[in-house]
Order: sequence, then C-alpha cells, then structure tokens
Amino acid sequence: MEISARNGLKGKVEEVTLGTVMANIHIKVEEPGVITAAITRESAEKLGLKVGDEVSAIIKSTEVIVGKEL
Amino acid sequence: MEISARNGLKGKVEEVTLGTVMANIHIKVEEPGVITAAITRESAEKLGLKVGDEVSAIIKSTEVIVGKEL
Amino acid sequence: MEISARNGLKGKVEEVTLGTVMANIHIKVEEPGVITAAITRESAEKLGLKVGDEVSAIIKSTEVIVGKEL
Amino acid sequence: MEISARNGLKGKVEEVTLGTVMANIHIKVEEPGVITAAITRESAEKLGLKVGDEVSAIIKSTEVIVGKEL
Amino acid sequence: MEISARNGLKGKVEEVTLGTVMANIHIKVEEPGVITAAITRESAEKLGLKVGDEVSAIIKSTEVIVGKEL
Amino acid sequence: MEISARNGLKGKVEEVTLGTVMANIHIKVEEPGVITAAITRESAEKLGLKVGDEVSAIIKSTEVIVGKEL
Repeated sequence: MEISARNGLKGKVEEVTLGTVMANIHIKVEEPGVITAAITRESAEKLGLKVGDEVSAIIKSTEVIVGKEL
Repeated sequence: MEISARNGLKGKVEEVTLGTVMANIHIKVEEPGVITAAITRESAEKLGLKVGDEVSAIIKSTEVIVGKEL
Repeated sequence: MEISARNGLKGKVEEVTLGTVMANIHIKVEEPGVITAAITRESAEKLGLKVGDEVSAIIKSTEVIVGKEL
Repeated sequence: MEISARNGLKGKVEEVTLGTVMANIHIKVEEPGVITAAITRESAEKLGLKVGDEVSAIIKSTEVIVGKEL
Repeated sequence: MEISARNGLKGKVEEVTLGTVMANIHIKVEEPGVITAAITRESAEKLGLKVGDEVSAIIKSTEVIVGKEL
Repeated sequence: MEISARNGLKGKVEEVTLGTVMANIHIKVEEPGVITAAITRESAEKLGLKVGDEVSAIIKSTEVIVGKEL
C-alpha cells in the first residue's frame, strides 16, 4: 500500500524505551532525503522562504510514525 | 529559545509552492541525524521494534515546521 | 458547541489502559461514517486519487480526540 | 511495510477537491473497526472513561493519511 | 459533549481567509487560561522544566481546531 | 532561529508530571495573543466563521511544543 504521507526517512533503531502506554524510539537517519512541509502561506512569507535557503525541518516526536518491513 | 520538539533536520529549500492559504516547501536533507518517535507501546510491540532494526520514520507534511535563521 | 474537526466516529470503549501521563483507549466503531482527509495536492496526484477508489484512512493514535456526553 | 499508526479504516473515495497546495478527500467508511486513541491520563479521568462508554473518536482532517494499493 | 482535548482558549475571530481547500482563521485570545502540553520526558529533562519557568506554548496552525456555539 | 509555527503563547509552568516516556506540563497563559488556525474551508463554512465571532481555539495536548530560553 502506498500512503499519502510524503516524508519517509530510512534509518536504524538506536534505542527503544517502553512506558506503560507510550514508547520512545530513537532512529538514526543516514541517507539523504527530501522532506515536504505544508505550512501556512503567511508563515512562508514571514520567513521569506525561497529556493536555496538553509532551513531546519522541525518535527514533534508524537507526529512521527514508524514503518518496518515484517 | 530552545524548544521541546526533538527532531530538527538541516536542509536546503528546493521548491516553494504558494497557494492562497497554504504553502508547500521541499527541503533537501543531506546531513545525518537522529529522529525520535513517540508511538504507543502497543505499536512498538506489534512491530517488534528493537535496536538495530531497519525502519522508516514517516511524517505527514502538515506536521513539519520550518525553522530559518533570520 | 460545534467544532471544526470534521471527523467524528461513534463507538463504544472496549479497553482503557492508564499510564502515568498518557492513557490508551480502544474504541469499537460500528456505524458507517465519512472521513475527510486534508492532504497535499502532490500526494493526491501521486496516489491518483479519484471517486470510487478503495482506500484506507490512516490515523496515528496520538491524533485522536475522545468526546463523551457527560 | 507495516506501520505504527494503529488506526486504518477502509473506505471508498466519494469526493476529491484539489486546491493549489492542498486536496480535500471524502472517504466513505462502511466497515466496522477499532480506533485507538492516545490521550492524556488527565483527560481520560476527567471524562471518566470506562469500558462500555458511548464515545466519539474525533479527528482533524489534516491528521488523516490516505493509503491506496497501487 | 465533553472532549478530551484539554486546551480551549476563548477568543474573537479577527480575520478569515478562504482558499480552495483550506481556510486561515485569526483568533484574538484575551482571557487567561491553562495550556497542557504532552511532550516526551526526554524533552522536559533537556529543557530542565520546573514549576515557575517562563516558557512559550508553541502550536502549528494546522493543529488548531475551532469551536463555536451555533 | 525563527520558526513557521505561528502560535506562541507566553506563560509560566504550573505543574510538571513525569512518566517513563512522556511528561505532562501545565502552562498558565496570562498575556493576550493571536492564534492562527488552518482548518478546511468546508469547516469554516459549516461553522459560518466571520470576523467578530466568539470562538474557542481547541488544541490537543500532544500537539503543544514547549519553548524556553536557556
């Protein structure tokens, strides 16, 4: 199945911490990739984003889904 | 200001598409980094996640924040 | 109060697991409903989405809000 | 690939609306399923959630990922 | 209906911008309130969060739901 | 670094609860501010949102990022 979530970064699990309800997974990403961000136009203009800009893609841990070939 | 969102991947803007309300930003990420995923324990166990596993960190574009030094 | 979140699926709680900070709730959904997804146009085109397609609506557990009549 | 996002509801696309950056997809869900919600323990206690409660699973459209067999 | 999303800030709509698929709403918040953040323990420790700290609650626009009495 | 997330509300930490994986932070917000919500146009029209409306900005705790000057 192909999914609409555009950002998939390959990596290796470095650490797994299990709580009662949640788990914290550290993934070491080594391959380069492209990240797509859908932000408001207002934000893009306020930051003056243009091709070539050095930026950071910032993601809250609770938003990351983990995929694995079983 | 330091923020709690743990995942910050450095990259370069490759494409900017502006709509009326939203904007789509492509960011080319080349440096390696570590991504932290907070998932349910149920999911971690169902996937059998353990150190060394090859996985993908999957992120919906609407969840990505863009940071830039102004 | 009416809210902008368009997707509300009625169901019955099947399981409640309490951690220190988080709780995991299983909800059995039996009534049919309509789910609205706001995805990037790029993703819609890459998947070639069109009326009649068989698809899955995929949602991370951390994104689900629970509502209950008190 | 198996993914950690636990909630996958099967349905049929009923409507596709394309904007410049975003697209709006209506998915008619007819099969019953189980939805897992990860909420704070505080919320679970405030709502007094327990097995058998009639509840709604509420999801913002921007949080829904679409999957399709290609 | 009571919902599990704990953060509800009352305000007045200042601006509405409609796109084809999305809309951008500015809400002026004047009443004080309490915001609950569920972050990873790692982040809380890295920031050294403790009672009395001056902090910012940062929220991406796509994560905000709007409620209105109809 | 400036970030695209438009909503930043200043406040004071009132309570910190640590779990194994997650932490729950209560932030008392006293200064007024403007919150931007990016919702679907459908939702904006269904709620009939217009300038001057009294509304609530509703945010799930897992979506809140905490920022602090270190």
